Amino acid sequence: MSQPHPPFSDWMSEVQARVESALSCYLPPAESIPGRLHQAMRYSTLGGGKRVRPLLAFAAGELTGASPEALDAAACAVECIHVYSLVHDDMPCMDDDVLRRGRPTCHVEYDDPTALLVGDSLQSLAFDILSRNSSSDPARQLEMVRVLARASGSCGMAGGQAIDLASVGKPLTQPELELMHALKTGALIRAAVLLGALCGQAMAETERETLDRFAKRAGLLFQVVDDILDCTASTATLGKTAGKDAAADKPTYVSLMGLDGAQRFAGDLESEALDALTIFGSRSLRLTELAAFIAHRKF
Amino acid sequence: MSQPHPPFSDWMSEVQARVESALSCYLPPAESIPGRLHQAMRYSTLGGGKRVRPLLAFAAGELTGASPEALDAAACAVECIHVYSLVHDDMPCMDDDVLRRGRPTCHVEYDDPTALLVGDSLQSLAFDILSRNSSSDPARQLEMVRVLARASGSCGMAGGQAIDLASVGKPLTQPELELMHALKTGALIRAAVLLGALCGQAMAETERETLDRFAKRAGLLFQVVDDILDCTASTATLGKTAGKDAAADKPTYVSLMGLDGAQRFAGDLESEALDALTIFGSRSLRLTELAAFIAHRKF
Repeated sequence: MSQPHPPFSDWMSEVQARVESALSCYLPPAESIPGRLHQAMRYSTLGGGKRVRPLLAFAAGELTGASPEALDAAACAVECIHVYSLVHDDMPCMDDDVLRRGRPTCHVEYDDPTALLVGDSLQSLAFDILSRNSSSDPARQLEMVRVLARASGSCGMAGGQAIDLASVGKPLTQPELELMHALKTGALIRAAVLLGALCGQAMAETERETLDRFAKRAGLLFQVVDDILDCTASTATLGKTAGKDAAADKPTYVSLMGLDGAQRFAGDLESEALDALTIFGSRSLRLTELAAFIAHRKF
Repeated sequence: MSQPHPPFSDWMSEVQARVESALSCYLPPAESIPGRLHQAMRYSTLGGGKRVRPLLAFAAGELTGASPEALDAAACAVECIHVYSLVHDDMPCMDDDVLRRGRPTCHVEYDDPTALLVGDSLQSLAFDILSRNSSSDPARQLEMVRVLARASGSCGMAGGQAIDLASVGKPLTQPELELMHALKTGALIRAAVLLGALCGQAMAETERETLDRFAKRAGLLFQVVDDILDCTASTATLGKTAGKDAAADKPTYVSLMGLDGAQRFAGDLESEALDALTIFGSRSLRLTELAAFIAHRKF
């Protein structure tokens, strides 16, 4: 952020470092009571992850001239919701996974009840972060709370996870699979983009709709690439268990369309996402770069 | 609410019915996708419970002339947080309980992953409810989000549950036991009282502090009476498993002070709570009656 347009990789590293530091400040200190819970929250949240949702929030903030300080809160709130969902999804009663971001999952490193409380507490923290430091526009801040709450709940992320659980071993059609992912990963990715944009100047309704069209495409693209990587990359590269979905007989875009078909679909989604951004001109530089990064990532 | 001061039992029934109806409206319909999750959310939330926290919110709203419509949102948001905590606490990896409000617990009636998602979704719903219908005072509404988020998180209710887990089989001193309960049950009861009052006219700082002193006493009183009932009442009367804390070797006020000592302590707390309310005069009628109800309840 020191120059107007440093290379994408520099921008990405800078945002990732900034978000890491902000998350560390927002999280309760490791020694504060109850210490074990706070240590487990910090273990699960800090020191890993691509921070895709925070990057999307910062990139969308560029469209509306948002300040980095406002974006810190939006980006960290979304990331807290994302991390809570990973911690709960990894628990034995859900996906029962032992590896996340290259390290033992929270319930393995700590224990099941602690993992349950880590997820619960990170969700509360997200709304705590979003409601702090009442800005000059509290109505806008309240709208951000509402956007994040809806994206997280039973008609958003948690609802997608419920559909995912119910779908194991069942053949899904492409529309059913898209609904599941639109909720499970798409809702929070859309929220990240919208929250970032809401940190700056007000947008015209058409701009907001166009941005949401981009976000829907980017969210689906992220999931399709995830499915491709799940069957082409190694556990070591991913930092989480590879081949898990196929082993669990879960429907994926690869199982539905084959590897080639999924790769073609990803290419189409990338084009559609980039097309949507053209109305923003040079303000959408980082969103454009980020969509390409999401499409071509190797981990 | 048709007359100025109907008897307490009528007022209580009226608020309970009102809250039941409001919760039913706020919860997604049972048939909306994902149906099983929404059915489980409704099963866990509706048709039972004393609704102590909503009653406290409505009673505190009387102090500041709050409208019933504003109180619906505050009361239902707090109750959603409370119900989510019951659903998660009953899970096999926590207290592993099978009976709640006289019915099978959520994970018994449905399954463990559904119970996990029910709790997660109810927490999101609480913040969704509080952030809807931006009022004429969005800054106040944002403050309510912040109060509820802090009361729910790792420095509030979830933190108290973590201390409770860590304390099984360990002798706690009275200050340690009070810290645990101040977080585990006290934080949300204080939030219920404060949120109710925040729905009306602004309070002077001294009034707010006095109200919080009442709420702290009432929260502790609620817990001490809970401990007394856990060892004196039957499972059928309580609608949840009686004698559970003693069986789990959990520290309680009865194990610390004996039954007589705990009963004397409850009497002292009730007096202190009622004393705090005197500055409010007749505006605190319902809070006064509610404190007596909490002290002398049999279930």
